Amino acid sequence: MSSPAQIGVTGLAVMGRNLARNFARRGYTVAVHNRTAARTRELVAEFGGEGDFVPATTAEEFVAALERPRRLVVMVKAGEPTDAVIEEFAPLLAEGDIIVDGGNAHFADTRRRERSLRERGIHFVGAGISGGEEGALNGPSIMPGGPAESWEALRPLLESVAAKAADGTPCTAHIGPDGAGHFVKMVHNGIEYADMQLIAEAYDLLRTVAGYEPARIAEVFRTWNTGRLDSYLIEITAEVLAHTDAATGLPFVDVVADRAEQKGTGRWTVQTALDLGVPVSGIAEAVFARSLSGHAGLREACAELPGPRCQVLDERDAARFADQVEQALYASKVISYAQGWNMMQAASAEYGWGVDLADVAAIWRGGCIIRAAFLDRVRAACAADPALPTLLADEEFAEEVGEAQPAWRTAVATAVRYGVPVPGLSAALASYDALRAERLPAALTQGQRDYFGAHTYRRTDREGAFHTRWGQDRSEVRADG
Amino acid sequence: MSSPAQIGVTGLAVMGRNLARNFARRGYTVAVHNRTAARTRELVAEFGGEGDFVPATTAEEFVAALERPRRLVVMVKAGEPTDAVIEEFAPLLAEGDIIVDGGNAHFADTRRRERSLRERGIHFVGAGISGGEEGALNGPSIMPGGPAESWEALRPLLESVAAKAADGTPCTAHIGPDGAGHFVKMVHNGIEYADMQLIAEAYDLLRTVAGYEPARIAEVFRTWNTGRLDSYLIEITAEVLAHTDAATGLPFVDVVADRAEQKGTGRWTVQTALDLGVPVSGIAEAVFARSLSGHAGLREACAELPGPRCQVLDERDAARFADQVEQALYASKVISYAQGWNMMQAASAEYGWGVDLADVAAIWRGGCIIRAAFLDRVRAACAADPALPTLLADEEFAEEVGEAQPAWRTAVATAVRYGVPVPGLSAALASYDALRAERLPAALTQGQRDYFGAHTYRRTDREGAFHTRWGQDRSEVRADG
Repeated sequence: MSSPAQIGVTGLAVMGRNLARNFARRGYTVAVHNRTAARTRELVAEFGGEGDFVPATTAEEFVAALERPRRLVVMVKAGEPTDAVIEEFAPLLAEGDIIVDGGNAHFADTRRRERSLRERGIHFVGAGISGGEEGALNGPSIMPGGPAESWEALRPLLESVAAKAADGTPCTAHIGPDGAGHFVKMVHNGIEYADMQLIAEAYDLLRTVAGYEPARIAEVFRTWNTGRLDSYLIEITAEVLAHTDAATGLPFVDVVADRAEQKGTGRWTVQTALDLGVPVSGIAEAVFARSLSGHAGLREACAELPGPRCQVLDERDAARFADQVEQALYASKVISYAQGWNMMQAASAEYGWGVDLADVAAIWRGGCIIRAAFLDRVRAACAADPALPTLLADEEFAEEVGEAQPAWRTAVATAVRYGVPVPGLSAALASYDALRAERLPAALTQGQRDYFGAHTYRRTDREGAFHTRWGQDRSEVRADG
Repeated sequence: MSSPAQIGVTGLAVMGRNLARNFARRGYTVAVHNRTAARTRELVAEFGGEGDFVPATTAEEFVAALERPRRLVVMVKAGEPTDAVIEEFAPLLAEGDIIVDGGNAHFADTRRRERSLRERGIHFVGAGISGGEEGALNGPSIMPGGPAESWEALRPLLESVAAKAADGTPCTAHIGPDGAGHFVKMVHNGIEYADMQLIAEAYDLLRTVAGYEPARIAEVFRTWNTGRLDSYLIEITAEVLAHTDAATGLPFVDVVADRAEQKGTGRWTVQTALDLGVPVSGIAEAVFARSLSGHAGLREACAELPGPRCQVLDERDAARFADQVEQALYASKVISYAQGWNMMQAASAEYGWGVDLADVAAIWRGGCIIRAAFLDRVRAACAADPALPTLLADEEFAEEVGEAQPAWRTAVATAVRYGVPVPGLSAALASYDALRAERLPAALTQGQRDYFGAHTYRRTDREGAFHTRWGQDRSEVRADG
């Protein structure tokens, strides 16, 4: 048998297996365990040469293989399977041992588990891990929450396996207590939904308005990927669009059914934002767009609804339009990141997490799905002013978005005229225009609420709550005391 | 003492008091009870002349005053107060007695309470009541869920106090088992949010683009109120806009602080729709617009962001634009009702409620905040085809929206060009364009998901799930067997 393992991974589906291999490749001795032992044997048989694995058949063996304090990473499905595994292992652990949940748990579950395990003397670390299979193997972005002491014990290992940003810093940091890590991972996924929806709309516009074929649009995205939009998602968009389906010879994107699926973290993000009172319209529209795409019956029932018939642009106008779309995409991306950042600020205040938003930007620069050159500038903006109320208040972002806004308006107006659905781009623009508005028509809304429900209103010219006696003489009365 | 009471109301804040008076005015003997007895005494002192009230000081007295089966209406705050009152009364009740919760409970709480009381032999009816104070007194729209037997016992009383539609039918119907009534009331409120947001945007456009003053906009809304937009909310919009603030002599809407508040049912609607996988972008944008309006710090930080400078339209163009806004408002309203209807369909299927959507439209024709002439046509559409997949599939609505779409596009594009935030109008248009799209860019989204997460995709030309080996030779493999 090998020396005691520095870390253990239980749950050896593709993410767990790849993470275990990542630890082993970095020189750690890794105890591995799975509910069905065949998977453990397969891992060792296939990848045993990559490093030191200690296969364990039972929970007891697994726990016995770990050096103290034990560091045990759970890589099973969120929800009941995670609770079941925790209940299996917790009784075998000693004070100060650490359970890391590397799955996509809801942060409220993580808060509950952390509290319950803390009472039993066990450190529970809800760690968001992004980067998919490939990231798990070669370097993901890791967002651990939980007790600060556990971070000290995990830090060298996590920094070793995490992705490295362009400047060499590891893409992991202690996010904050209890559910902070899983919360931040959830917001990461929500932003990912928004990014993907905006990209899909940009593609649709280039296809429908500019009349470009997928291969040509791939070229456009490749060019964009050399500028401020430089990111993993833009890069793979070009790859997917350039791909030809072998069976038909058609562009791959044309043979894929146009139904986008989802696994729930986007939905959670929006539901949580609603509880926090933070508008995240970009993420919401992305989630809705995916659900709508899957409602075949509804779409069929609406297939004959009329739309405009517009000619595709000529070559010169198309090129100009493509540039406008880039500006619309970039500006909308800034808005949706600003929304996500506001959501993390709000949660950090609500739960007392003390999340460092510059850290979040820093560790998303590599490894994760939304990794992007852009995030280094977000990091810089948050570091320069930790109290920044919104990314849009950062001078550089404000200037860029301000410069982009005429083209952004043209792109959205053109989409509207051509009948191309752009829920993400138009929601972002509406958010921009609402944020900068001197007066919002919310005054009318509040007036209506006072009319039908006596909900009262504030005045612009003096303090206090007021009610107008709409049903009587329409005189105004104080309503606050 | 009076004869036994046919109905009892506990919780005598304004809604409960007015509902009790409504029952009494209709000739019922009404037992009344409140946690603090002073309110009960006040009610009888002030309104005792309106009918037969039986004031009760204790829970025991209250229950003893009711004829069997007892019909007891709880009008207290949603959440713990409701649970507390139920726990106070349930032990005093007998098999077959009925507790009606007339508050704004979350339907999941209603489901829980109904199940728990059913085991104790008590009928629990979660009844949505809409219409505000005035409706409670003179005729609200009432949406009771719960056991069918309890509906038989409640029906004559509820039909008596409910609003009457223009054709004389009472605005109440048995919605379905357990949480169905509160669910439908929640969607009512969600739609109310969307309606109010669309109205606010229409007002903003007439003000900013057409350059109309509030009094003139009030006239426009009055005119709209004689057409297909005829509704309570349009009517009170005109009233609010026409009102002059006595203290300043300014239009009332200009002295009201532009921060719209909310009490939670809009948020619940969106959160629930997300769980059901139904896109309700109109309601979501309305909820977000309200939260955004209240984020003073964020708005202040964004106040200097640049926007376009456009001249207001001249008189003739302004009149044409006002007509386009009417069309945009109407079409967007149809979309948001279609979204709400889809949500009720989905929940009815999910929970096996068997909700009759024509009934829902029928009982919203009077008494409630969203009452509108339009709802009689919604009722007719649902009655003509109970399996209608969406209101947009109804011939008449499809035709109207189809005819409105060019003007709708112009209104949204103009808003975008002028920098007026129209999240509701543009989300509705995006929804329309997505629903009718032959191909959605969701195909690209799903291709990306397969690229970074091996989430697989469907093909347009054959059955099955597929995966492209992006990291290897980009060959396609079956992924479902």
